[in-house]
Amino acid sequence: MRLKRMLQNGVVLLVALFLVLGATAAQAAKAEKKTAVVLAVFGTSHESGLDGILNIREQIKKELPGIPVRVAFTSNIIRRIWQERRQDPTYAAQHPEVPGEILNVKGPLAAIADLQDEGYGYIVVQPTHISSGEEFADLAGYVEGLNSIKTVKKRNMPFKKILLGRPALRTYGIEHEYRHDIEQVAVIVAPDVEMARKAGRALVYFAHGNEHYSTGVYLEFEQVMRQRYPGVRIYVTMVEGFPDNARLFAELKSDKTKKVLLKPFMTVAGDHAKNDMAGSEPDSLKSLLEARGINVAASLVGLGESDDFAAIFAQHVQDAMKDEGI
Amino acid sequence: MRLKRMLQNGVVLLVALFLVLGATAAQAAKAEKKTAVVLAVFGTSHESGLDGILNIREQIKKELPGIPVRVAFTSNIIRRIWQERRQDPTYAAQHPEVPGEILNVKGPLAAIADLQDEGYGYIVVQPTHISSGEEFADLAGYVEGLNSIKTVKKRNMPFKKILLGRPALRTYGIEHEYRHDIEQVAVIVAPDVEMARKAGRALVYFAHGNEHYSTGVYLEFEQVMRQRYPGVRIYVTMVEGFPDNARLFAELKSDKTKKVLLKPFMTVAGDHAKNDMAGSEPDSLKSLLEARGINVAASLVGLGESDDFAAIFAQHVQDAMKDEGI
Amino acid sequence: MRLKRMLQNGVVLLVALFLVLGATAAQAAKAEKKTAVVLAVFGTSHESGLDGILNIREQIKKELPGIPVRVAFTSNIIRRIWQERRQDPTYAAQHPEVPGEILNVKGPLAAIADLQDEGYGYIVVQPTHISSGEEFADLAGYVEGLNSIKTVKKRNMPFKKILLGRPALRTYGIEHEYRHDIEQVAVIVAPDVEMARKAGRALVYFAHGNEHYSTGVYLEFEQVMRQRYPGVRIYVTMVEGFPDNARLFAELKSDKTKKVLLKPFMTVAGDHAKNDMAGSEPDSLKSLLEARGINVAASLVGLGESDDFAAIFAQHVQDAMKDEGI
Amino acid sequence: MRLKRMLQNGVVLLVALFLVLGATAAQAAKAEKKTAVVLAVFGTSHESGLDGILNIREQIKKELPGIPVRVAFTSNIIRRIWQERRQDPTYAAQHPEVPGEILNVKGPLAAIADLQDEGYGYIVVQPTHISSGEEFADLAGYVEGLNSIKTVKKRNMPFKKILLGRPALRTYGIEHEYRHDIEQVAVIVAPDVEMARKAGRALVYFAHGNEHYSTGVYLEFEQVMRQRYPGVRIYVTMVEGFPDNARLFAELKSDKTKKVLLKPFMTVAGDHAKNDMAGSEPDSLKSLLEARGINVAASLVGLGESDDFAAIFAQHVQDAMKDEGI
Repeated sequence: MRLKRMLQNGVVLLVALFLVLGATAAQAAKAEKKTAVVLAVFGTSHESGLDGILNIREQIKKELPGIPVRVAFTSNIIRRIWQERRQDPTYAAQHPEVPGEILNVKGPLAAIADLQDEGYGYIVVQPTHISSGEEFADLAGYVEGLNSIKTVKKRNMPFKKILLGRPALRTYGIEHEYRHDIEQVAVIVAPDVEMARKAGRALVYFAHGNEHYSTGVYLEFEQVMRQRYPGVRIYVTMVEGFPDNARLFAELKSDKTKKVLLKPFMTVAGDHAKNDMAGSEPDSLKSLLEARGINVAASLVGLGESDDFAAIFAQHVQDAMKDEGI
Repeated sequence: MRLKRMLQNGVVLLVALFLVLGATAAQAAKAEKKTAVVLAVFGTSHESGLDGILNIREQIKKELPGIPVRVAFTSNIIRRIWQERRQDPTYAAQHPEVPGEILNVKGPLAAIADLQDEGYGYIVVQPTHISSGEEFADLAGYVEGLNSIKTVKKRNMPFKKILLGRPALRTYGIEHEYRHDIEQVAVIVAPDVEMARKAGRALVYFAHGNEHYSTGVYLEFEQVMRQRYPGVRIYVTMVEGFPDNARLFAELKSDKTKKVLLKPFMTVAGDHAKNDMAGSEPDSLKSLLEARGINVAASLVGLGESDDFAAIFAQHVQDAMKDEGI
Repeated sequence: MRLKRMLQNGVVLLVALFLVLGATAAQAAKAEKKTAVVLAVFGTSHESGLDGILNIREQIKKELPGIPVRVAFTSNIIRRIWQERRQDPTYAAQHPEVPGEILNVKGPLAAIADLQDEGYGYIVVQPTHISSGEEFADLAGYVEGLNSIKTVKKRNMPFKKILLGRPALRTYGIEHEYRHDIEQVAVIVAPDVEMARKAGRALVYFAHGNEHYSTGVYLEFEQVMRQRYPGVRIYVTMVEGFPDNARLFAELKSDKTKKVLLKPFMTVAGDHAKNDMAGSEPDSLKSLLEARGINVAASLVGLGESDDFAAIFAQHVQDAMKDEGI
Repeated sequence: MRLKRMLQNGVVLLVALFLVLGATAAQAAKAEKKTAVVLAVFGTSHESGLDGILNIREQIKKELPGIPVRVAFTSNIIRRIWQERRQDPTYAAQHPEVPGEILNVKGPLAAIADLQDEGYGYIVVQPTHISSGEEFADLAGYVEGLNSIKTVKKRNMPFKKILLGRPALRTYGIEHEYRHDIEQVAVIVAPDVEMARKAGRALVYFAHGNEHYSTGVYLEFEQVMRQRYPGVRIYVTMVEGFPDNARLFAELKSDKTKKVLLKPFMTVAGDHAKNDMAGSEPDSLKSLLEARGINVAASLVGLGESDDFAAIFAQHVQDAMKDEGI
């Protein structure tokens, strides 16, 4: 009995809504409600690092008009910094360039749950990771846990489904060959190679990596790059994992390379790019190379600031949707 | 390297925070941060029905000082009504008695996720269900799904654990005997029996129940009540399930009962109490009884409005915490 | 390359098999391979208790010709007794009535896994429980765990699906109303009522129950029985749970019942029936009733020995298959 | 009551058992019962390929005396071949070298379940994979599913825990650095390098790999080998994945390598080694190399036949146990 009355009330409200908005707008609203995107980024405390993130968000919005895209930061430490900033009454005034969405940024769980609460049935969680290591595994753990929620009746399920977009270089899974992803990225970074070539420098990519998952895919990417661009010497080195600096230094020496262009092979040019790669401290990659007599130029542009690279993630959102048949 | 710098930044921020708040307050803040409660209610669109809900919230706050208690509505339909109301600029002005927390109420998933985002490791989800039927099973499905989230490193887990408090009458599980719960409720509702006794009426409880799960626990509750209060005739009947109206009518007839006091055996006196139980429509329980020549009085006070009954849920929050060792 | 060769070898083998068996037999073999049943019983160490179990197995085989039905014992303790017996060289010779399947009985996990190894994609686990309490929950835990196994490619999944048949009285779930199940059992046990009626005795069912899950469904069954068979006094009492002996004794006294027929409301008439119900020890139900001046007759036939009752489980296997669309 | 009697019976049986076996033997039996190992192998239909598998089993037995080790074949196709063989009355007579355990081999699920049925609480599933690709992910899916089985009471859990040993080269996970595993394998295969050196040949490892997971770890292994053994040219190529034959041919050409020793970088020298690597068909690696004017020698010894390599898996079983604290 209760249900019937509820439904009647609901119908009355919907009818009222139709009269207010006009049927067409309401239909559009309904269609738009179906799917939303959570862009899951490690996060950055550097305001300038936001450019890469916001650009990816824009590319996804452009490719998927009408679908909301929410940014979530996965790092608890970074999120805590932003939580402090939003309680600091002076911060917002001093940083008009920071959008409210970032100032009030949530983690992936709360971002997903808010969209669920607003009625979105399909939520695509799109990471901005380069490859699938520990952080991607953690995000997959969130998605798997949420998708495992079961209710007695199907219509009470919180979601139709949460989808997980793949990183730029995928590295496992049967739907999308990671080798195709490597090839695609190799094509897209052509301007980096061109920049190095014009400057008469070797191109050294500085990737993140990790200690716990094989980072061999970066070696494979390096090989693909070397085959595709034989005119320029190309190297990959990493914050953590292999290929590492020891190998880089040995190869540079054996190749007699004297001039390099350092570039972050990371979505965001944040702390790692500014300090670990190009900083003036003695243990930065720049300092270590200069100590070996190598002339260093550095670019501080994250991959996400390239529209073509950012579009990869928009493509991966669309692939995840297509794989699900939506 | 990134991490180290992050941690350093974090330390600086924490130090600043200490200076602002004073160490004692900050320590208190940290202690308070550990555990939070989500009070998961079906929800109601009747403003008067909020009393029972808000009273339970108060009882939990009283028993667990310093621990935040957020109300969540599990019903999508009810939540949608409140979503409309908060977009209606006139509603809030016309209903100053409705707290902002209700006007902006979220579902259990978003309520849990917001607390996770704010740093709470233990979140106790406490339903206000009378027994464990379909709705409780659904809530347990949410909790189980969220607790199944796994991250590579333990310290990146979104929660320490989400705990689920038991309904008023539990009906399964090995930690807390449901028979004890039945006894406890039987003691607490003594004022209802007293009210009926003074009025020279039989007491008829109107419970909700459901079609899909055994509601035999209500029969068992009825037997316990009859044994405890032999001086007053006591019956239970239900919106859905057994014991049902057919049995009630047969027993009233065989007992020659002529005067009854109807009382909702529900946490909230909402639509069911007002309309299905005590309404003037011909298919309300009141009308059906009167058609059988029975004199009917009705109480429209939900069980949640009784401090003693509300305290059961505070107790069940504490039991869930104690079972977990926190 | 390996796979291709494997497949070729496989095809050769299949072709050889076809020539040996003839295509029709092979097709039949393939069809039969699809689905198998595991009859999950608590188990019994009493050879005479096997009758009820084997009869249920026969009923399922009769209703589902060509589908293998394996008996599994869920009790570790009972299984250990049979493990000892099969290592005892004299046991088999002394007990020719015990089928090899029982002598070599496994638990539900190994029974399911053996069928998986033999190529069955759908495996229906059919318990012989009367209602869904702790043991059914445990079995459901096995089925849920096994169904949660995920492989990278769908074709490498160990199962199509493991299905779980419902107990005789179901008590939750949305597909099959437990009230319908109660009604059906009430119809089927008519001969018990008739036996009591002829003997001028009240019928006292002795059920198992448990302490941790609501056993209110037995109260509900009792009420349905009383309504259906007004000519005979009918009571239910339980080893564990409510309605209990205290209530039975009180009702017998208030009803002035002097002669009763005890009957196990259990699938198997094993230890509980022989000792707890009808034994000569002073704490058996029989002795307790006699001490209260009641004349007692006892039937030691388990419900499973009734073809009509056994057929319920065959029906529930079929319902589980139909619900899955197979 | 039932339980008490069961326990009494159980005690009688145990006492009898003690008298038969003697208390010491019985205690040993109990201790041995705790843990068992399932050696999960893809499987092979080549009788000669069994040597590598049986050697690994022996190494584990040697390192873990008293702990049973059961071989399981993960490949449905291979298992079906053995199912045919055991129904062929002539096969066993013609192949006395094939142990009964292989002839009656089961898949991992049935092997695990049989051990559970026999009372083993901890079961270590140890794969013989070189790295963690699709097959390892599938095995992990089995283990995760089985470990997710929940029962109401802890003592009714089917397992204490199923543990999963890591592949030879691990490639993810935080407990055991895969780089350490790579180093260890590089040390162990020294005899292969020595064999190539003595023969004046380059060493070409033929690994399996796959299309769906990054095989970059093999590139990393190749680099580690080249650094450790500068005196011999070392290459890795794969059935599926990268580094592939195209790269091998290009490097051989640029290195002007004229003589190679082919060796399977696989646990078992089965179909891939015999046919894809060293076969006489025109698309075998041997034929392809010879067509490029390279002199080819081939070893058909699987890595599992090396005691040192086999011991890696015994070590990984022990690591899994140590990580769990048993």
